[in-house]
Amino acid sequence: MKILIINGPNLNLLGTRQPEIYGDKTFDAYFAELKNRFPNVDLDYFQSNHEGALIDKLHEAGNIYNGVILNAGGYTHTSVALADAVAGIRTPVVEVHISQIFAREKFRHHSYIAPICKGTISGFGLDSYRLALLSFLG
Amino acid sequence: MKILIINGPNLNLLGTRQPEIYGDKTFDAYFAELKNRFPNVDLDYFQSNHEGALIDKLHEAGNIYNGVILNAGGYTHTSVALADAVAGIRTPVVEVHISQIFAREKFRHHSYIAPICKGTISGFGLDSYRLALLSFLG
Amino acid sequence: MKILIINGPNLNLLGTRQPEIYGDKTFDAYFAELKNRFPNVDLDYFQSNHEGALIDKLHEAGNIYNGVILNAGGYTHTSVALADAVAGIRTPVVEVHISQIFAREKFRHHSYIAPICKGTISGFGLDSYRLALLSFLG
Amino acid sequence: MKILIINGPNLNLLGTRQPEIYGDKTFDAYFAELKNRFPNVDLDYFQSNHEGALIDKLHEAGNIYNGVILNAGGYTHTSVALADAVAGIRTPVVEVHISQIFAREKFRHHSYIAPICKGTISGFGLDSYRLALLSFLG
Amino acid sequence: MKILIINGPNLNLLGTRQPEIYGDKTFDAYFAELKNRFPNVDLDYFQSNHEGALIDKLHEAGNIYNGVILNAGGYTHTSVALADAVAGIRTPVVEVHISQIFAREKFRHHSYIAPICKGTISGFGLDSYRLALLSFLG
Amino acid sequence: MKILIINGPNLNLLGTRQPEIYGDKTFDAYFAELKNRFPNVDLDYFQSNHEGALIDKLHEAGNIYNGVILNAGGYTHTSVALADAVAGIRTPVVEVHISQIFAREKFRHHSYIAPICKGTISGFGLDSYRLALLSFLG
Amino acid sequence: MKILIINGPNLNLLGTRQPEIYGDKTFDAYFAELKNRFPNVDLDYFQSNHEGALIDKLHEAGNIYNGVILNAGGYTHTSVALADAVAGIRTPVVEVHISQIFAREKFRHHSYIAPICKGTISGFGLDSYRLALLSFLG
Amino acid sequence: MKILIINGPNLNLLGTRQPEIYGDKTFDAYFAELKNRFPNVDLDYFQSNHEGALIDKLHEAGNIYNGVILNAGGYTHTSVALADAVAGIRTPVVEVHISQIFAREKFRHHSYIAPICKGTISGFGLDSYRLALLSFLG
Amino acid sequence: MKILIINGPNLNLLGTRQPEIYGDKTFDAYFAELKNRFPNVDLDYFQSNHEGALIDKLHEAGNIYNGVILNAGGYTHTSVALADAVAGIRTPVVEVHISQIFAREKFRHHSYIAPICKGTISGFGLDSYRLALLSFLG
Amino acid sequence: MKILIINGPNLNLLGTRQPEIYGDKTFDAYFAELKNRFPNVDLDYFQSNHEGALIDKLHEAGNIYNGVILNAGGYTHTSVALADAVAGIRTPVVEVHISQIFAREKFRHHSYIAPICKGTISGFGLDSYRLALLSFLG
Amino acid sequence: MKILIINGPNLNLLGTRQPEIYGDKTFDAYFAELKNRFPNVDLDYFQSNHEGALIDKLHEAGNIYNGVILNAGGYTHTSVALADAVAGIRTPVVEVHISQIFAREKFRHHSYIAPICKGTISGFGLDSYRLALLSFLG
Amino acid sequence: MKILIINGPNLNLLGTRQPEIYGDKTFDAYFAELKNRFPNVDLDYFQSNHEGALIDKLHEAGNIYNGVILNAGGYTHTSVALADAVAGIRTPVVEVHISQIFAREKFRHHSYIAPICKGTISGFGLDSYRLALLSFLG
Repeated sequence: MKILIINGPNLNLLGTRQPEIYGDKTFDAYFAELKNRFPNVDLDYFQSNHEGALIDKLHEAGNIYNGVILNAGGYTHTSVALADAVAGIRTPVVEVHISQIFAREKFRHHSYIAPICKGTISGFGLDSYRLALLSFLG
Repeated sequence: MKILIINGPNLNLLGTRQPEIYGDKTFDAYFAELKNRFPNVDLDYFQSNHEGALIDKLHEAGNIYNGVILNAGGYTHTSVALADAVAGIRTPVVEVHISQIFAREKFRHHSYIAPICKGTISGFGLDSYRLALLSFLG
Repeated sequence: MKILIINGPNLNLLGTRQPEIYGDKTFDAYFAELKNRFPNVDLDYFQSNHEGALIDKLHEAGNIYNGVILNAGGYTHTSVALADAVAGIRTPVVEVHISQIFAREKFRHHSYIAPICKGTISGFGLDSYRLALLSFLG
Repeated sequence: MKILIINGPNLNLLGTRQPEIYGDKTFDAYFAELKNRFPNVDLDYFQSNHEGALIDKLHEAGNIYNGVILNAGGYTHTSVALADAVAGIRTPVVEVHISQIFAREKFRHHSYIAPICKGTISGFGLDSYRLALLSFLG
Repeated sequence: MKILIINGPNLNLLGTRQPEIYGDKTFDAYFAELKNRFPNVDLDYFQSNHEGALIDKLHEAGNIYNGVILNAGGYTHTSVALADAVAGIRTPVVEVHISQIFAREKFRHHSYIAPICKGTISGFGLDSYRLALLSFLG
Repeated sequence: MKILIINGPNLNLLGTRQPEIYGDKTFDAYFAELKNRFPNVDLDYFQSNHEGALIDKLHEAGNIYNGVILNAGGYTHTSVALADAVAGIRTPVVEVHISQIFAREKFRHHSYIAPICKGTISGFGLDSYRLALLSFLG
Repeated sequence: MKILIINGPNLNLLGTRQPEIYGDKTFDAYFAELKNRFPNVDLDYFQSNHEGALIDKLHEAGNIYNGVILNAGGYTHTSVALADAVAGIRTPVVEVHISQIFAREKFRHHSYIAPICKGTISGFGLDSYRLALLSFLG
Repeated sequence: MKILIINGPNLNLLGTRQPEIYGDKTFDAYFAELKNRFPNVDLDYFQSNHEGALIDKLHEAGNIYNGVILNAGGYTHTSVALADAVAGIRTPVVEVHISQIFAREKFRHHSYIAPICKGTISGFGLDSYRLALLSFLG
Repeated sequence: MKILIINGPNLNLLGTRQPEIYGDKTFDAYFAELKNRFPNVDLDYFQSNHEGALIDKLHEAGNIYNGVILNAGGYTHTSVALADAVAGIRTPVVEVHISQIFAREKFRHHSYIAPICKGTISGFGLDSYRLALLSFLG
Repeated sequence: MKILIINGPNLNLLGTRQPEIYGDKTFDAYFAELKNRFPNVDLDYFQSNHEGALIDKLHEAGNIYNGVILNAGGYTHTSVALADAVAGIRTPVVEVHISQIFAREKFRHHSYIAPICKGTISGFGLDSYRLALLSFLG
Repeated sequence: MKILIINGPNLNLLGTRQPEIYGDKTFDAYFAELKNRFPNVDLDYFQSNHEGALIDKLHEAGNIYNGVILNAGGYTHTSVALADAVAGIRTPVVEVHISQIFAREKFRHHSYIAPICKGTISGFGLDSYRLALLSFLG
Repeated sequence: MKILIINGPNLNLLGTRQPEIYGDKTFDAYFAELKNRFPNVDLDYFQSNHEGALIDKLHEAGNIYNGVILNAGGYTHTSVALADAVAGIRTPVVEVHISQIFAREKFRHHSYIAPICKGTISGFGLDSYRLALLSFLG
């Protein structure tokens, strides 16, 4: 099983950005833990602040991975192009959010990506990624 | 660890109601599987079509359970009273949905319950319950 | 032919509640007349002010009746759960309203139930029930 | 008893237009059946695609008929002028729709005509006309 | 000075239609009075319930009259086509309404025609026409 | 003078639920104080989390009490059925809220019940009930 | 016949303010012409930029004048208080606007005052005042 | 205890303005009764139709009174400035309305002042002022 | 190949109406050029200001032509009936606009007709018709 | 260079009102500092809580000052009349706000005044006035 | 004549992405056909999933090409920046869409780019590009 | 003091793009002037049309600069991701706009960035940058 985690804009700041919302662990540290915990999963990670780079990666992932875990950050709420990329590939995509987006500003309640994702997991902190991974393992 | 699953209106019809959306397994059958899979969790189940009965149960659960998994069905989108019940107890509540509610009618995109839940899991079919359970197990 | 009339909240007050809108005949009196007029129809009647009880009854009716005539009263405009119950059974349901709901407050113009009902009849006073019954008799 | 059925735009296409929504019987065939079934009613029929012609006919009908059955088609949702015509005559008017308009596009959920009609019947196919006729016969 | 009064849908019913709103004088009677009161004005009158006929008349009036007094009735609120006709001719048009449209249903508060008319006069009963005429006489 | 206080959903949690909003006194304790303070008023109390039970109680109260003090909790903002029950009885009803609902989430600013209540009192903590009672005593 | 013209905020700038919208004649000059043209009318004039002063004047006018011609300027679109003042007196009030407000910014299309005025005259330049005056003279 | 009643625009007309809504007693008469009924309260009264004067008075009251009872009339629905004045002083302010504002035009359902007031009392006629006074007396 | 061009309201004024938007060539002149340029196409032309006449023509065209080029003018934005006529025939219809409707008033941005047309061409001046014709020729 | 600072409602409370938003320095103290810092500018100051007085002052300033710095306080969001006053004079006006209004309640995000001001400066505390002054000095 | 086709996000997937909407021909194959069909046009092609790269290309094209054919894909509905780029160059731009965007999700009905394009062509499949090209050839 | 100016999309076109809105000076020329005028400030400049590059730069600037002056161009109105980047760094950011954005299209009135910026300066042409710089110098 080959799974790709894609993180969108500002998630490279995890651990330093607004720790009261996002916690103080870096994603690299978390990713290492996750790989340790799931040694049988071939787990990759990609982050970019560029909407286009995220789209390019999704296209590429469509031919290689069994599943994609996507935290599109701020593009979740504004990017039709990213949503079209999810719809344009056959690999199932699970949407994750670290914070409970439904408890924050109103513009974060709408996701262009959700309707074409296999499922959505929101609000469990970094643990949202583990749950998403488990959704692929069954 | 003591966990309660609460299912709201029409979820007693699972297995017969709109199988193209909700699948053809009854919840009782699924619940038995779930208990088997997690033998160390003290797992209970409650279903009602009555908003008031769901509120009563949440109040009661607040003193007994370590966590609640809540699929409020149609009340998700219309019940301030149920959301107030979730806010009124200390036990953490995880919101689950079988279908991907963000891909259905617009009135299903809004949840009164989400903002005061620990997290939301939507769209994985009955597997949403397992993921919610795993969120409590860490 | 077995037909069930289900009346929702406050319809037990018929004859005393706002007679300028709903008339001054009790539903029991009207129901007796209706049974007299259609001796060959096996006609039952259920009323409740409890949303959950109406849902329970619809589930039960789904296995027994050839048709349901539903006046959901105030729940018409607010209950996704009741609408899901109508969608969850195979028996056809006809929506009726005593008053012309489109001539009243704006929040009464929208019905969650209408889109999944066989048809809607609104505004003919108690005669709306007779017309709904005739729609099943063909 | 003298009753006039008025059909608005595109209802002359009945039987050929979108048969999955409107069925495959022409209105002329249906009208003949209806006259046969109600031999004691003096039943007339008028169809036009012209909003103005429908208004003219309503004015004229106001002096001649005991009741009007009006399917205003697409003008239902857009014509204040037609609604004013209904309000301007003393003959009671019943609004009918072949399809369940509340289950179709959002712009078909609003009717300018409903608030000033005696009642509304929607969704029973061509049988909506028979039910409307029965509402006048009591 | 040549002035044309154009009345739109249902204004042929004046005197009989909803007299509590529109009064009980026919427009013909009023028009005769108006001609008597302004003997030096060459005053014509046209009424139609047909949107297209009103547009045709406006096109024609554009070459003949010094001014048009237009009561577009229900088309006021719904007809872009009529407004485009007003914009398409060089003769100045004054919009009149018998009732105070801003005190009635919300959909009567918006006029497609107002922005391209020389002015608007609303609410003076039939006297609105006299004031409109006086606006041309200076 | 016979007055009934009706409390809706989650008000049974008073004293433990969100004390920063609702205070830390139970309603039972407050009710005892209120009875002491107004020994000449025949004061009863009813609480339910069930919308239907609240409606049933209102119907019953309509024949017995001189006044009803209603805190409908979360149903205030969502229940047409409860509002119809208030409109359906002759006993005057006063709406109360413990918190200042206009200073909270936007969905709490609208009340279906207010328009058909004798008056509304909001924001005085438990003292809102005393003021409501005084409104009946004059 | 005693008539009062009340002009609201910024109308003291007439003749210098945005002449492409409002023309280049001062209101004093126009008022003198108007008095000359209607020697038999007892015509007064009041202008203030203060909402409160306009309300005070309307209260006072209610006992003295047969009619008020009110151009409330910017307060037209924002002042419930001024509209309540018009509703609170018995003297009929006619609303006038120099520019065609329906052809300007969207926020100028709504008038709080219109629904409780005898009539509205908009768009004829300063001639709007003369037409308003003529509406009182019959 | 020193309490100030502040009445906003048009409340000087009480007793003559729309008596079917506001009753036929002048506020002066009512104020005398209130002083008689509460001889131990140092009760003052201020009325103005000027938004600015109401703000000035609130600023001044902030240093002198233990409480303010504010009926802001039409400014309730439109004045951010008045609401800022309430927020800018430390004296608690109670909002009152004579009529049940939630049963009137939609624009009267929103209050800029409510969110920053201690509480709101609406709909009890002049008795709303007594209840507000009692809220300060405890 | 038999193609019909249908022009809606006010397009008979082309060449004289608002030439800064629509140009100064009459449609007859343009139509002659178009026929010259495409001698192998059997090209017809129909114009009416009557919504009903446009609907009648579309019905008729449905049996005769291989394609329809429709500029519905102002009816584009307001006519459900015309859109239903397009949906009711089998001949493919291409929507054209002379001006770029998306750069004009907001109400011109929505087209009832677009969703059921084969395609939309907007903004190329009269050349929009040639492009529409070329879409049929392939 | 002659510059006038105009402060609107509640800005006289600066230093005492909500210091967590507006700071604890009085405007008089700040104004003295500003005059010291810019000895070559002829700097005046006016404050009023009266919308009308602000309008009067703007009219007067139009003939005397080279520039106006306007903090309209709560009137920013509600006053068309004040905006019309700004539009009605030739002196350029710069809009300032002490707090970052775009980070506060939604109703503070809209300014009637901004579109007709030379520029807007918001959020720099009292330093917003200095920046506005510098915009005139170049 | 030098023409550039610019394709936005996900259009590199043409031929594999949702073929029921976009067809099964790759754009490269189509582009080769188009070049063959128009041998006298100097036709170039650029695709990127990066909003910034599309803007850079538009800037560059402004100095080199006689026309641009732009299918901005998902950025059509969300990118003010791209629309500003179109407005910032002098080369005319034609907007094309393969699918009929007005028949799809509501968020695809609005285009930021349309108002500043020479014209819009939507719904003809890949043939939309040929028609756009023909619009430049005249 | 180290300050970075970041310019977003299309601002590289300054001097050639829509000079009636943005003026005819290039930003490079302006930047040279600014450096000359503030020789003691360490002033840098970055421009990109790529949303992701702007986010990358903001992250980098967060560790190096004392302040950032950000003109996000079209991304101002659409980019949650960019706003999150501003919120994710500790360096204060001032938002500037060359044109008065509140006087342009409605979609330019909303800024995702404003609520988390230290302040906003809009409408002073290129001078907006100087004022922003002065806000850091105190």
